[in-house]
Amino acid sequence: MDTTMSALGTTARETGHAARLKIRAGAHRRPTAGMAPGYVQANLAILPAALAADFHRFCHLNPKPCPLLAASEPGDPRLPALGADLDIRTDIPRYRVWKKGELVDEVDDIRAVWRDDLVSFALGCSFSFEEALVENGLDIRHITCGSNVPMYRTNIATAPAGPFHGPMVVSMRPFRPADAIRAVQVTTRFPTVHGAPVHLGKPEMIGIKDIAKPDYGDPVEVRDDELPVFWACGVTPQSVIATVKPEFCITHAPGYMLVTDLLNARLAIL
Amino acid sequence: MDTTMSALGTTARETGHAARLKIRAGAHRRPTAGMAPGYVQANLAILPAALAADFHRFCHLNPKPCPLLAASEPGDPRLPALGADLDIRTDIPRYRVWKKGELVDEVDDIRAVWRDDLVSFALGCSFSFEEALVENGLDIRHITCGSNVPMYRTNIATAPAGPFHGPMVVSMRPFRPADAIRAVQVTTRFPTVHGAPVHLGKPEMIGIKDIAKPDYGDPVEVRDDELPVFWACGVTPQSVIATVKPEFCITHAPGYMLVTDLLNARLAIL
Repeated sequence: MDTTMSALGTTARETGHAARLKIRAGAHRRPTAGMAPGYVQANLAILPAALAADFHRFCHLNPKPCPLLAASEPGDPRLPALGADLDIRTDIPRYRVWKKGELVDEVDDIRAVWRDDLVSFALGCSFSFEEALVENGLDIRHITCGSNVPMYRTNIATAPAGPFHGPMVVSMRPFRPADAIRAVQVTTRFPTVHGAPVHLGKPEMIGIKDIAKPDYGDPVEVRDDELPVFWACGVTPQSVIATVKPEFCITHAPGYMLVTDLLNARLAIL
Repeated sequence: MDTTMSALGTTARETGHAARLKIRAGAHRRPTAGMAPGYVQANLAILPAALAADFHRFCHLNPKPCPLLAASEPGDPRLPALGADLDIRTDIPRYRVWKKGELVDEVDDIRAVWRDDLVSFALGCSFSFEEALVENGLDIRHITCGSNVPMYRTNIATAPAGPFHGPMVVSMRPFRPADAIRAVQVTTRFPTVHGAPVHLGKPEMIGIKDIAKPDYGDPVEVRDDELPVFWACGVTPQSVIATVKPEFCITHAPGYMLVTDLLNARLAIL
C-alpha cells in the first residue's frame, strides 16, 4: 500500500502518488480536496505548442495569478518535476475539453484526444497556502461553510503576452485585522502558490462592486469586524485562455486537481 | 574624523559613534532624526533597581511595544551591546527627569542625578523600520508632512508585570492596500523594533474613536483609498511607567534618542 507513516508515527497518510494511482485506476471520480493531505495540488492547462510559448511567457509575466510549477515538453504526457510516475492524460479525475473557447466535453481520461503538439502547464493552487493558514489556526470561512471560495474579476490588468491578456481574477477570504496580518505573513512564504495577498479591505478599489456577488464560486459572509483579503487566483489563466478561444485546449474541471509528489511544506521559501 | 565610506564609496556617512561623540561634546542639542543614517536609534528608560526586575519582565511579556535591545547592570552607565564607547549619562541630547510621575527637569547631562541603583533599558524604535519602509519606496505620510507620527491609546491591554500595566499605545501610518501588504512584509523582518503591525483598517476595533485626534503626536490625513496601519509604539512603556509614578526615573525627551553602533540592516531577521 502506497502510504507513509506521518511524522507523529501513528496514522498512515496517503501520498500524492497513491492518490494519482487511485485516480488513474478509476477508483476516485470526485474532487481532490482532502486527498493526500500535505501534498501540492495543481491547476492544469494543456495548450497546442503554437500557443505554448506565449502562454509560458504570460505565466512568467504574471507569477501571482499564474505561478508555474511545471511545463511539459510538447507531446510528452509526463511532468517529472511533479512526480516520477505521472501521466497527465489519466491522473486527473475530471478534465474539460475545449474547442474554440467552447466546452465540448468533460471526461476522466484524455488519451483519446491527446496530440503530439500538446504542452501541459501545472500552476500552483490556493489549497497549498490554505493548508498553511489552517495550520496557523486561522479560520477559512468558505472551508468552514463547506462552500467554494468566492472569486471576482478585478480591474487589475494582467501583463499581456501574445494573445493572452485580461483582468486578474482574485479569491477572497475574510479575516479579522490581526489574522489578516498573520495571513499576509504566512502566504508570503509561498510565492509559487499565489503568495501574499494582492489587496485587502476596500473591494471597490479593485473594481469589485458587490462583495456579496462573486463572479465565480459562492458568496461568504464578511463580518463587521473583518476585512476582505484578496489573493491572485488560478482562475485568471482559465479566464484569459477562454478569451483567446484556442482551437483546442484541455483544463482540469474546477476542484478536480492534479495531485503531485511535492510537499506543501517544501514550497515555503523561508 | 569618525566617519565611514558608504558602500557606494562616495559619501562619508556619520556613524552612530560619531553622533554620540558630537552629542556628548554638546555640539548637537536637537532631535536625533536624520543623525547617523542606517544606525539604530533607541528609546531610553532608566529606573531604580527596585523596579527594574518587574520592568524587565514587562518588556519580555510585551515585546511588540517594548522590544528590549539592551539592559544595563545596576549603576553601570554603559550599554556595551549597543556601543563600546557609550555613556548613557551624557550621550543623549535631552533627558527628562521624573519624580513620583511628575516631570521635574529637562537636562542634557544626567551625571549630576546619577545613582548607583539605576538600570538603563534601551528599547527599539520605529525609526529603524521606517528607514526600511522608505528604502522600499513607500511614502510615510508624517515624514512627508514633516510632522510627528500620530499615536493612539488603544483598548489592547498589555500583559502586566508587578506594578506595570496599562493599554498599548500604537502609532499609525496610512497606506494604500498593496503598500499596506508590503509594509507588513517589510516590518515583519524587524521584530526588535516593533515588528509587524498589530492592526490595520477599522480603528474602532482597537478603541480609537477619532483617527483625526491622536492622543500623542500630530494627525495625518488618511485618504479614501488608504487603510490606517497600526504598529505597537515605544510610547507604551513611557505611558505605563507614568502610571506607576516611580519615586525616580529618567527617560529620553521625545525625539531625542540614543544613537547606537548597531546597523538597522543587521536587525532584519531574514
